[in-house]
Amino acid sequence: MNETLKKMSNVDESFIKPLPNSKKIYVKGSRKDIQVPMRRITLTDTIGELAEKNDPVYVYDTSGAYTDPSVKIDLRQGLGNVRSNWIEERDDTELLKGLSSDFSNERRDDQALEELRFEHLQAPRCAKQGKNVTQMHYARQGIITPEMEYIAIRENCKWQDYKDKIGQQKGESFGASIPDVITPEFVRDEVARGRAVIPVNVNHPESEPMIIGRNFMVKINGNIGNSALGSSIDEEVNKMVWGIRWGADTIMDLSTGKNIHETREWIIRNSPVPIGTVPIYQALEKVNGVAEDLTWEVFRDTLIEQAEQGVDYFTIHAGVRLKHVPLTINRITGIVSRGGSIMAKWCLAHHQESFIYTHFEEICEIMKAYDITFSLGDGLRPGCIADANDAAQFGELETLGELTKIAWKHDVQTFIEGPGHVPMQMIKENMEKQLDECGEAPFYTLGPLTTDIAPGYDHITSAIGAAQIGWYGCAMLCYVTPKEHLGLPNQDDVKQGIIAYKIAAHAADLAKGHPGAQIRDNALSKARFEFRWEDQFNLGLDPDTARKYHDETLPKQAAKTSHFCSMCGPKFCSMKITQEIKTMDKAEIAKINAIQVEMDNKSAEFLANDSEIYMKEK
Amino acid sequence: MNETLKKMSNVDESFIKPLPNSKKIYVKGSRKDIQVPMRRITLTDTIGELAEKNDPVYVYDTSGAYTDPSVKIDLRQGLGNVRSNWIEERDDTELLKGLSSDFSNERRDDQALEELRFEHLQAPRCAKQGKNVTQMHYARQGIITPEMEYIAIRENCKWQDYKDKIGQQKGESFGASIPDVITPEFVRDEVARGRAVIPVNVNHPESEPMIIGRNFMVKINGNIGNSALGSSIDEEVNKMVWGIRWGADTIMDLSTGKNIHETREWIIRNSPVPIGTVPIYQALEKVNGVAEDLTWEVFRDTLIEQAEQGVDYFTIHAGVRLKHVPLTINRITGIVSRGGSIMAKWCLAHHQESFIYTHFEEICEIMKAYDITFSLGDGLRPGCIADANDAAQFGELETLGELTKIAWKHDVQTFIEGPGHVPMQMIKENMEKQLDECGEAPFYTLGPLTTDIAPGYDHITSAIGAAQIGWYGCAMLCYVTPKEHLGLPNQDDVKQGIIAYKIAAHAADLAKGHPGAQIRDNALSKARFEFRWEDQFNLGLDPDTARKYHDETLPKQAAKTSHFCSMCGPKFCSMKITQEIKTMDKAEIAKINAIQVEMDNKSAEFLANDSEIYMKEK
Repeated sequence: MNETLKKMSNVDESFIKPLPNSKKIYVKGSRKDIQVPMRRITLTDTIGELAEKNDPVYVYDTSGAYTDPSVKIDLRQGLGNVRSNWIEERDDTELLKGLSSDFSNERRDDQALEELRFEHLQAPRCAKQGKNVTQMHYARQGIITPEMEYIAIRENCKWQDYKDKIGQQKGESFGASIPDVITPEFVRDEVARGRAVIPVNVNHPESEPMIIGRNFMVKINGNIGNSALGSSIDEEVNKMVWGIRWGADTIMDLSTGKNIHETREWIIRNSPVPIGTVPIYQALEKVNGVAEDLTWEVFRDTLIEQAEQGVDYFTIHAGVRLKHVPLTINRITGIVSRGGSIMAKWCLAHHQESFIYTHFEEICEIMKAYDITFSLGDGLRPGCIADANDAAQFGELETLGELTKIAWKHDVQTFIEGPGHVPMQMIKENMEKQLDECGEAPFYTLGPLTTDIAPGYDHITSAIGAAQIGWYGCAMLCYVTPKEHLGLPNQDDVKQGIIAYKIAAHAADLAKGHPGAQIRDNALSKARFEFRWEDQFNLGLDPDTARKYHDETLPKQAAKTSHFCSMCGPKFCSMKITQEIKTMDKAEIAKINAIQVEMDNKSAEFLANDSEIYMKEK
Repeated sequence: MNETLKKMSNVDESFIKPLPNSKKIYVKGSRKDIQVPMRRITLTDTIGELAEKNDPVYVYDTSGAYTDPSVKIDLRQGLGNVRSNWIEERDDTELLKGLSSDFSNERRDDQALEELRFEHLQAPRCAKQGKNVTQMHYARQGIITPEMEYIAIRENCKWQDYKDKIGQQKGESFGASIPDVITPEFVRDEVARGRAVIPVNVNHPESEPMIIGRNFMVKINGNIGNSALGSSIDEEVNKMVWGIRWGADTIMDLSTGKNIHETREWIIRNSPVPIGTVPIYQALEKVNGVAEDLTWEVFRDTLIEQAEQGVDYFTIHAGVRLKHVPLTINRITGIVSRGGSIMAKWCLAHHQESFIYTHFEEICEIMKAYDITFSLGDGLRPGCIADANDAAQFGELETLGELTKIAWKHDVQTFIEGPGHVPMQMIKENMEKQLDECGEAPFYTLGPLTTDIAPGYDHITSAIGAAQIGWYGCAMLCYVTPKEHLGLPNQDDVKQGIIAYKIAAHAADLAKGHPGAQIRDNALSKARFEFRWEDQFNLGLDPDTARKYHDETLPKQAAKTSHFCSMCGPKFCSMKITQEIKTMDKAEIAKINAIQVEMDNKSAEFLANDSEIYMKEK
């Protein structure tokens, strides 16, 4: 066995160990092969005078089979197929005899790559002649696919079980249409009207269907990918497994270094979440990094190459038109999007309209043959506060709106990328402009960062903006790590970015009033109030860190069952006092009512005195 | 020399080393003894075709003499006096013969404490009989104090120097009255009408005057303080020095452990920023932690004790009235404020109105004799999302509004504390209610946390809420560290909390459109675009971490002057491409104009084609 394959057969145990007191369960749908994963967090009982059983909490689970101890994980085998039956049943795709991309064929024939290659490659699948195999196409014909039903179950997260028990604050959704319960029909309808997308390439049957749209839970994306400066296939696959462990709903592979093709193969075959890419990055590598040398043919071959590997969504910078480029000239940071600057350079060098723009309908034909979703790239997104919401950015956004309509004409699923750097007071304007120009196609933003002055902390500067834009209607938030602008994220940076974005997304769900969103908050807060320390840790986004922090102050195991908190120590604790009050009051409810009356009298009396004091001072 | 004093003579060098390329400067006011500190960050020149000098950037500096290499720091001596002249000139205070608090006298007479005591204690100062020495009192008489002039200079941060050079996005201030330039008269007027406070006890002449109000820069507070579980005087003083290094505008000493009195003495004598406390914490220690045993006399003596040490603002939980307590009974987390639960317990145990409430005007008399500012505590703030903006919280807020008016009758400066845990969609309602009930007295909130589900990351859950409430009009944000709910913050936690809150406060300043707020963002973004790496690090909130992160990916010193960024590596970098475009364009401005015309033609042509394609498909 060669070195790469040997490495790949190992997964770090700490990446796949189930989270504490958590068990992966599967909720069955209308047919046996719809098995929707969720994570059940079991809680301890409340003890003492307020003794009661505490219901388990079910949370959305992005970690796939990795956290199911009954599944044997072997990266060299790849994951099991979730969707093969459904794809085959539809009978509108066929297995191809070979690979359609020249580049893919070259790589396959290169003996030197044997040691890097994923061993169990399947023949690629493609739509039969004249067929459109997108979820949007089915939806528009009134078909509820198994994917849609799967998603409905997944999004509800069994919240109906709590409906009459758990209070939730009233949300403000700014005109979204969030239903009380997500039905398969609602999923279909949202996909049909373009307000949500289900990124599911027919060549990625391992993926567990998920949805991106403003009327669903806000999703987050984590980026991975090697660069010219390093990182191995092994490391990238592990980053993906690590990212979904903490909650990444999709993963973008932004590799620009060595063996991009093979790296991607390993990632897709082992990913239960949709994989997105920016094909122009690889196309640029194929022309040795010289933007001017890019051609439609190289780009097209790259799209086919990646389509047949199973990439679920493509970032396509079709909105960077020649006319937009001069609009960036007075910016402080010009064009900061990699794809945007590649295309801008190409346009200027050739004095021509972008070949991506001019070939957009041909791209649509490819997308619908594999069901790849457009992520229309914001190549002119602002790179600093000063450049936010400017003519270049909004000019491109208007073009993206036009392109959305063209994509929809082809029943190609589409979402729209957004910034970047935007100060808080301008975020809503950006969100509204996107909804308006793009007919409510889902928005997918990078942050936005709400200030430029904190390099090293841009997961925080951007979580602030991400929470807000999620609240205003953004459907997916692309994470930013602490290394943004400075360096390549390591394992801990990936986790920091994911957690910051899970916070932003969840804060947005609460603010929108997403049904059931508050169940976990309430359960955690109840645990906190009752000094059920283990439950508090386990209900959190990161049980390991919460426990570690508690240990630093109160290392003893006994402290985990102590009826005080670590801030005030054993002698005095506000929660302890309140708990005493609460217990006392419960036992003496009649007495309390008497106090209330007495209080009111005293209060009236006091107010009289008070006024008197006022009088005296005059 | 005893052990404590020996330790205290050392300050960690890394705590007081000037930040890189930064120099403390002093801007002189109308008189020689008004010397307002700022930090000047010197930048390198832009090189290449766009070569130019870059102006230095002046930033608000909270770090006091600690970062001035010309000042010899000796914690055993304490800091030099900034305000003694001004206080003495006013001739309305006098030095007392002895200490007025029984407890202070006991401590002074206790020989066993010699080894803990700050060595150079001055006689306490107090208003002369019948005098009111608050800044509000002076302001209302039309007097502009040196403190007010100092603050005007400090708040402007020399931004007028940039006025015609630097663009800034239009803000949205939600009805605030932010002037273009802060004048001493504006400061006076804001203090007179109660819309801003200057916390400056006459016994804390070491403090550098600062202001808290919605029409000024948003401020942040850092908490320190020992607990029953540990920490020494030395550690607490160092935490203070560390906190102000990173930008804490005020420090609250929340000690509840050993030697609270002596710890506070050391902190105040060495603090250039206002110090706040929660006197009920110490009062509770005096009655051995038994809330029911608290009395007005013990509390009053504690106020006097701390007043004569120089505490600048007191958190006073006067709004927790007997009638509010039952309103918390159905909450998930009851009463989470320490002060609130102490008072609630006292009220219930005695079936009486809170002694703080009934003695409020006597407290005002103390406040005005030393110029201590009220921070009216929110003892009933919500401890979880489910309890936000409820009857208990808003009932207390209404009481705080009444008390504000009483305090103002005495010309006592007052601000109002707020939550806590509030989901995003309810933050604005809370802010508006506070402005309305409390006549625009400054609001000072703890976060708010926008979700409960991330223990270990509550600096982030709360920075999201803090940025928003700061934007909406909150004047000061109390930091939350990653250890919130879990343990006692260590040195790194303090820094993490401060930086997260500097981000929130600055994001709020940008959003409000605070004059000059964007200068630093613009300068940093320009440096970023031009690959002036060192400038980018140095302009950031935490140059050390930014540099460290860059080193991790590109350790060589040469990389700090490289014209590429670490994400894409040397071969391709979007900023590099854009920079090329920009340089090219600058050199060929005429050509660009020609391209523009050509583009428009092409675009029109293309649109025609495009429509045709549309037609064909039909």
